[in-house]
Amino acid sequence: MTNHKIALIPGDGIGVDVTDAAIEIATAAARRFGFTLATETFPWSCDHYLATGRMMPEDGIETLRGFEAIYLGAVGWPATVPDSVSLHGLLLPIRKAFAQYANMRPHRLLKGVEGPLRSEGFDILCIRENTEGEYSGAGGRVHQGTPGEVAIQTSVFTRMGVERILRFGFEQARARRGHLTSVTKSNAQQYSMVFWDEVTREVAADYPDVSVEPMHIDAMAARMVMAPESLDVIVASNLFGDILTDLGAAIQGGLGFAASANINPDRNAPSMFEPVHGSAPDIAGKDIANPIAAIWSAAMMLDHLGEAEAAAAILAAIEAATAQGIGTRPGSHSTSAITQAVKAALEA
Amino acid sequence: MTNHKIALIPGDGIGVDVTDAAIEIATAAARRFGFTLATETFPWSCDHYLATGRMMPEDGIETLRGFEAIYLGAVGWPATVPDSVSLHGLLLPIRKAFAQYANMRPHRLLKGVEGPLRSEGFDILCIRENTEGEYSGAGGRVHQGTPGEVAIQTSVFTRMGVERILRFGFEQARARRGHLTSVTKSNAQQYSMVFWDEVTREVAADYPDVSVEPMHIDAMAARMVMAPESLDVIVASNLFGDILTDLGAAIQGGLGFAASANINPDRNAPSMFEPVHGSAPDIAGKDIANPIAAIWSAAMMLDHLGEAEAAAAILAAIEAATAQGIGTRPGSHSTSAITQAVKAALEA
Ligand SMILES: CC(C)[C@H](C(=O)O)[C@@H](O)C(=O)O
Ligand SMILES: CC(C)[C@H](C(=O)O)[C@@H](O)C(=O)O
Repeated sequence: MTNHKIALIPGDGIGVDVTDAAIEIATAAARRFGFTLATETFPWSCDHYLATGRMMPEDGIETLRGFEAIYLGAVGWPATVPDSVSLHGLLLPIRKAFAQYANMRPHRLLKGVEGPLRSEGFDILCIRENTEGEYSGAGGRVHQGTPGEVAIQTSVFTRMGVERILRFGFEQARARRGHLTSVTKSNAQQYSMVFWDEVTREVAADYPDVSVEPMHIDAMAARMVMAPESLDVIVASNLFGDILTDLGAAIQGGLGFAASANINPDRNAPSMFEPVHGSAPDIAGKDIANPIAAIWSAAMMLDHLGEAEAAAAILAAIEAATAQGIGTRPGSHSTSAITQAVKAALEA
Repeated sequence: MTNHKIALIPGDGIGVDVTDAAIEIATAAARRFGFTLATETFPWSCDHYLATGRMMPEDGIETLRGFEAIYLGAVGWPATVPDSVSLHGLLLPIRKAFAQYANMRPHRLLKGVEGPLRSEGFDILCIRENTEGEYSGAGGRVHQGTPGEVAIQTSVFTRMGVERILRFGFEQARARRGHLTSVTKSNAQQYSMVFWDEVTREVAADYPDVSVEPMHIDAMAARMVMAPESLDVIVASNLFGDILTDLGAAIQGGLGFAASANINPDRNAPSMFEPVHGSAPDIAGKDIANPIAAIWSAAMMLDHLGEAEAAAAILAAIEAATAQGIGTRPGSHSTSAITQAVKAALEA
């Protein structure tokens, strides 16, 4: 029987609640489809930081390297640890260290979910560059605390980084409806984004079967609201992908439904799976967080691990629940009620 | 009789169509309210670039300095001149040279307009920093054209720049519903955006009557779609404001309705007024562009020039037209039909 070794990092706030839910469902799917999950839980979080001075131990990355995949709940507890510390101490270094350069986020309305748009028939896969660009962390502050202060934040785009995410995007587009939109802001950022456009044109030459369209981030944000059904695969930089995927989450009914996978396509290091939502301190530990995004992310994990049937069964079970109105409106059902409904559908 | 000296830069594509419409309405308002507009038209555009090698003459900025205000249609014709050239040669230098640091963009549904959201009752004023930040133009490319290429784009935020836009935003919030949302991404950009958050906290201390809320750009994009009625004044950096105002345009029914003012609040140089939309080459010169955004922008210009009554009358005339369904759906009415309907309402 195949055994998959999974590192769990529930993290902060509702990260803990939804990780429990997601792993309960993934385990039920494993049972049904004849494989096992060996999970090990790491307490890395803001509490851990307050206790130890670090979000994860110095050898954290090395420890994680021994796993087939990482499942993460959510990171951040801004009341006690600034986000700029917690995220740069845990989430962002994992994405970079394991070259999880493709952040995949699907946006579509689950059965039974009413989104904020009048328009409903969209099915978008957003692929976000996940290791460099606007998140490179380069920069500094000069004359700090004085009237003459200047703060500098530098985006760094490499040929390697831009080319690999675009190739990944074209492969995905080829496996879907054959359309790719590459998002930049080359009319205002004349180095980074003009470069991205150039690489897009080059890579596109290798995919004559995929239609490609460049689009500025501002126009793209508007289009996701005005005409989301016109989109198939979106490829965007780290920051632009961050923004568009929260927008994608919104049009699919909210962050409770937005799943994500941080993929290392070369498979020479573990990939990481996490819902798009944050730790939501205000509702943490109250059994009211919507676990659907987290469960869907677990399905993406199983798919990545080669358990496509189990992944598909989880997704079908989620929609069996939402089609009945379970988990579709904020506050209508508890975390555990939603989880049990999905589990029942999965085992039926 | 007061005479206002206005520089017109119709620019490219539908910029020409809508500038004509906007000035026709502004002139009609002037007639009704007893002042005059002395306009001078400058042909600066992509055609001008192709003919002269420059988007505007070397002394273009000095020429414009002699006017009370600038009205701009749209800039860009990417088929012949890259946007990174045309915009850095005309639009962006004007915003910077005249310290038009406050880009104001109102987002609400005009009477009779059906937006893409189920939610309708929002009234947002987005204030975008307009002179620095992600648009500073600093950066470069190393090892260009080789596999080892690196492209660098540097955002520069100054104490002066951040503080002045926030103060402007707090003043606006005070004059509206007393709520300000400051948009950053301090969880990922630890220099620029953490700095912005700090300045927000400092400036907020001078406005105890305004409630202030920091929010990340990704969450904000989602919120504009999920709960736009919860927003009053938004203050954002140059790039974030660019994105949010296209999104704001989308929720108000499209770019045909999105007006904007590039304001120099210190009034030591002319301010510039322009619709948010671009030059739309595909529909240029066909008398089908929606002129409402442009007309609304002209109203903002008159308001800035002290002609508040005329500005209000134009806005009322626009809504008299849209309330009858004129100009509310793409293609339903020609540019000139919409313009004439607004004019008739204004003169009625
Ligand atoms: C928490 C934050 C740093 C993170 C990001 O911006 O990448 C989150 O918003 C996400 O989308 O995964
Ligand atoms: C044309 C472009 C450079 C411009 C901008 O990004 O500022 C436009 O999108 C706007 O919003 O005025």
